[in-house]
Amino acid sequence: MSLFDDLIPTLITETPAEGRELAIMIARKTIATIQPDADIRGELRSDYDQDSAKLMQAGQIVAIEFQTIAAANNYWTS
Amino acid sequence: MSLFDDLIPTLITETPAEGRELAIMIARKTIATIQPDADIRGELRSDYDQDSAKLMQAGQIVAIEFQTIAAANNYWTS
Amino acid sequence: MSLFDDLIPTLITETPAEGRELAIMIARKTIATIQPDADIRGELRSDYDQDSAKLMQAGQIVAIEFQTIAAANNYWTS
Amino acid sequence: MSLFDDLIPTLITETPAEGRELAIMIARKTIATIQPDADIRGELRSDYDQDSAKLMQAGQIVAIEFQTIAAANNYWTS
Amino acid sequence: MSLFDDLIPTLITETPAEGRELAIMIARKTIATIQPDADIRGELRSDYDQDSAKLMQAGQIVAIEFQTIAAANNYWTS
Amino acid sequence: MSLFDDLIPTLITETPAEGRELAIMIARKTIATIQPDADIRGELRSDYDQDSAKLMQAGQIVAIEFQTIAAANNYWTS
Repeated sequence: MSLFDDLIPTLITETPAEGRELAIMIARKTIATIQPDADIRGELRSDYDQDSAKLMQAGQIVAIEFQTIAAANNYWTS
Repeated sequence: MSLFDDLIPTLITETPAEGRELAIMIARKTIATIQPDADIRGELRSDYDQDSAKLMQAGQIVAIEFQTIAAANNYWTS
Repeated sequence: MSLFDDLIPTLITETPAEGRELAIMIARKTIATIQPDADIRGELRSDYDQDSAKLMQAGQIVAIEFQTIAAANNYWTS
Repeated sequence: MSLFDDLIPTLITETPAEGRELAIMIARKTIATIQPDADIRGELRSDYDQDSAKLMQAGQIVAIEFQTIAAANNYWTS
Repeated sequence: MSLFDDLIPTLITETPAEGRELAIMIARKTIATIQPDADIRGELRSDYDQDSAKLMQAGQIVAIEFQTIAAANNYWTS
Repeated sequence: MSLFDDLIPTLITETPAEGRELAIMIARKTIATIQPDADIRGELRSDYDQDSAKLMQAGQIVAIEFQTIAAANNYWTS
């Protein structure tokens, strides 16, 4: 039984757009697993989403997660 | 229904050049999803585009997104 | 005989969720291998889990480990 | 019509050396797309090319771009 | 004749655990190649292994090396 | 005609060890291409090789270059 069971039952999505949403969700939930306290995460949020370096750091994680999901879906080409 | 539906209906492009444009667009829209306030993004822009480390951070994200898109298009070789 | 023998007898998991848990576990144990002193790690924890840049750094490592595990499991599609 | 049309009509090169040059060129042009003002880029250059961390940041981007180009060329083995 | 001859005669290992050990060893030896002075490395060690950002930087390198080794071993599935 | 012609006529090496040396060499020559002034590079060297974060940054680039070379050589398994 895993905390991620409800979140990622599968990596397969219907469209690239849904795959992108999944990448963002997985990235966020991983942070929430490492720092489970929602109040602290809330405070951190106001910190990072107005800082371009941190926003890009988040963007890079999403890019890496999307690589995995896109490969899982054979790039939605078949 | 996803915010990305109109943005990335497909990862397939006609040319490597269009694939590169798509990589840049996806990277930008992901940042916009994380920080939806356009005014804040505008302020951040004047911050990062005159800072070589941040410009390169953006360049690296584009490089990672392009890896995915290039693989999806079988590197435009077939 | 390796320290990791009990930790990663295999990269194969039943579900993506378990694969994600494995990615987090491998990332943590690698840090523990580099810094074996649990007291020091405990002190460092209070440092990094309230720092958004460091939390994202941890998230990025998990994303990279998950790429490997997802590929090992053929993305749980077969 | 894309700004990159003249720059990357193809990812295919005759040799690994030319592939490496292409990787460097693509990395540079992406930065130029994000910051189109050549004067600002000129000022930034004197900043980053005497800073080892920034030089390595540039080197890492080239390494990532080269991964894509090398795969596109089947590593120049066939 | 290479400095790495004795270290990595092969990327093939019997188990994922041994592959993980190899990834850590390769990462360490590469640093030792860049900075061959063991005394300086000893001093640097006390610096980085009590700094969470640097520990994670080391963890990320291991994750990248492990990707290569896991692929070389076909993820130990055959 | 490329500056890299003599450096990387091929990505194929006889052994993983030689592949590792090639990865280090390519990483170094790319930095030298971006900053061609050997005197400046010499000064920067004394800066980065006593700084653990920068040493690891160099190690990470080598890890990425090695991924490409290892794939080119089919991981030296055939």
